[in-house]
Amino acid sequence: MLFYRGLSKISGNFRGSGGIFNVRSFVFTKGLPALHCSRYQIHQKSRSISEDKFDPFSMVADELSFVANNLRAMVVAEVPKLFLSAEYFFRVGVEGKRFRPTVLLLMSTALKLSTPKPPHHFDQGGSVATDLRTRQQCIAQIIEMIHVASLLHDDILDDADTRRGIGSLNIVMGNKLAVLTGNFLLSRAVVALASLQNTEVVSLVARAIDDLVTGEIMQMSTTADQRYSMEYYMQKTYYKTASLISNSCKAVAVLAGQTAEVAMLAFDYGKNLGLAFQLIDDVLDFTGTSASLGKGSLSDIRHGIVTAPILFAMEEFPQLRAVVDKGFDNPDNVDIALEYLGKSRGIQRTKDLAVIHANLAIAAIDSLPDSDDEEVKNSRRALVNLTQRVIVSH
Amino acid sequence: MLFYRGLSKISGNFRGSGGIFNVRSFVFTKGLPALHCSRYQIHQKSRSISEDKFDPFSMVADELSFVANNLRAMVVAEVPKLFLSAEYFFRVGVEGKRFRPTVLLLMSTALKLSTPKPPHHFDQGGSVATDLRTRQQCIAQIIEMIHVASLLHDDILDDADTRRGIGSLNIVMGNKLAVLTGNFLLSRAVVALASLQNTEVVSLVARAIDDLVTGEIMQMSTTADQRYSMEYYMQKTYYKTASLISNSCKAVAVLAGQTAEVAMLAFDYGKNLGLAFQLIDDVLDFTGTSASLGKGSLSDIRHGIVTAPILFAMEEFPQLRAVVDKGFDNPDNVDIALEYLGKSRGIQRTKDLAVIHANLAIAAIDSLPDSDDEEVKNSRRALVNLTQRVIVSH
Repeated sequence: MLFYRGLSKISGNFRGSGGIFNVRSFVFTKGLPALHCSRYQIHQKSRSISEDKFDPFSMVADELSFVANNLRAMVVAEVPKLFLSAEYFFRVGVEGKRFRPTVLLLMSTALKLSTPKPPHHFDQGGSVATDLRTRQQCIAQIIEMIHVASLLHDDILDDADTRRGIGSLNIVMGNKLAVLTGNFLLSRAVVALASLQNTEVVSLVARAIDDLVTGEIMQMSTTADQRYSMEYYMQKTYYKTASLISNSCKAVAVLAGQTAEVAMLAFDYGKNLGLAFQLIDDVLDFTGTSASLGKGSLSDIRHGIVTAPILFAMEEFPQLRAVVDKGFDNPDNVDIALEYLGKSRGIQRTKDLAVIHANLAIAAIDSLPDSDDEEVKNSRRALVNLTQRVIVSH
Repeated sequence: MLFYRGLSKISGNFRGSGGIFNVRSFVFTKGLPALHCSRYQIHQKSRSISEDKFDPFSMVADELSFVANNLRAMVVAEVPKLFLSAEYFFRVGVEGKRFRPTVLLLMSTALKLSTPKPPHHFDQGGSVATDLRTRQQCIAQIIEMIHVASLLHDDILDDADTRRGIGSLNIVMGNKLAVLTGNFLLSRAVVALASLQNTEVVSLVARAIDDLVTGEIMQMSTTADQRYSMEYYMQKTYYKTASLISNSCKAVAVLAGQTAEVAMLAFDYGKNLGLAFQLIDDVLDFTGTSASLGKGSLSDIRHGIVTAPILFAMEEFPQLRAVVDKGFDNPDNVDIALEYLGKSRGIQRTKDLAVIHANLAIAAIDSLPDSDDEEVKNSRRALVNLTQRVIVSH
């Protein structure tokens, strides 16, 4: 059941626009495909994020607009207040980076390969069979709906008052409507999922929904031992962030009729991208976009959520545990914890761990079957580029 | 989209232990299978609820215990607080009547017929194929989980403080844990649903989940015209109560490999049983188990929810609309509304409408293909008995 089972020593390096990150830490990697990591070190050419012609977001910009329009159409509700709530985070300007749809559309193109079996199509009751790309776009829409549904409920649980630079829905419309809107988005997603009529895809997305909830539960309610366990933290991070990306990447491969091996590489890409994303997010909670401690929102620590930087710092300064034990209702305690964090290598080791997962994500893309199709190759480059952005500028 | 589209005149009668209910009202029936209704009037023998050897709950008591144990096992969570919350309404003594699992287990037996195609089984990866009955029990578990998940969220939306004679979960554990527990039950249900690997069953249950949310939305936020529309009320009642029963009854038929005709009869039974159930529930909110007004909890009217008795009363006394318009924050207004209701035939016409739907439910059972199997016949009798209980003693 545990995703991370132990420690093993890994070293590697990663060239991003910010230079080479050195990875010398003890990190949690048992069970991870170390082969991909080392393979990447051999094969990786000097890629640079400056390859902006493979800008992932602009490569799929038109299709993203199409997906965004579909999303707004899917949440049309007869009740005006609900429609306003449901499309609250799908409106132009506050739709976020649309990170997940971008990944899924690029992955769909990256997997345009001849397949051993035809893509899974249904043509029941005389309707015209929907083409593969439309079905993959549908996955992108479903995943974004599930993601936003989870944000709405998370914001209730965290008493968040802002999201994407505007008031959170629970603040603007109240907790009740936020509960209902989350349920509405989720139920619309489940109906759309059922319409794809693919039992494996249903299972993958069902698993992701369950993992999202499990991750939230793990974060909300922990024993002291769990709270200070890196293993528990990584497991929670997989459930809460990475599972939705990994399972949906696999779903677009399954829809395309890809082999189990290719589907697993798609899954690995999504998993490691998601882990890297969240690790960097946890760093940014302390630093913001600068490198200085205390420039971030400090939202996690103020809510008593212990993330990787603090966990690593605690390894160096066990006395930090007593500080965390006291809780962070008292702002002085936050300052003391930040002081320990500043003296420690916590931030750097978290970045290093993110780099390892970024490497693994890129290695998964590199391990896909070769293709001569320029469109396929460009989409793979864009997925690599996206992974680098997560590390460098996320 | 609208379930009830208009009015047509129907008359019929129903023999329950309480005597014959006369049905002479104008009721909403367009789109309903009137054929079944008239067919029932011809074929219906003098049944009595005294047929207690077909007591629906005791007939499936052992299997209900098994389902209840499975339910508790399915919501085991590593986090103790969540486990306590998740099994809160699955504990012995507060598990409710288990109305839905009872219907589904009886329906499973009632549909033990030779089928044109074998039941839908999967045997992937070398695992032993699960037998049909286990899969149908799984539907019963899934539906009960979805039902309880919806209760938890409804209680938050309604600020309810009790449920099944104990404190509601939102009161006992707080709104946040109630949100999370609802999500947890729903996600577990979706995972179990996916494991059945039947795309049609997934679609049916997905539809039911979506309808539940739509029903709640329709109740929460209405325009004045919608609030006073019988058509809107019946549509909401279908979504909020009947859809889960109708779609799950159809799902057990689909799992059994039954014909579309049989599956539709199962659906019709569930739909009409659900509508009858809710109509009587709305009467009981005013009368409790006595026949006197004001003996119920008056919970709906106090929350400003306008149900069938008031809607019928309003047809006789249009001036009641002005009373309802004022809202019921003032208890005097509740009393005035009750006075109008008492002078009107609102309660009786609601009961009459419930009887019509009960008739339709029984007619659907009577229309099932004949069987010589005593077990099948007894289960059908128990489904009829259950329908009668809804009218007489629910």
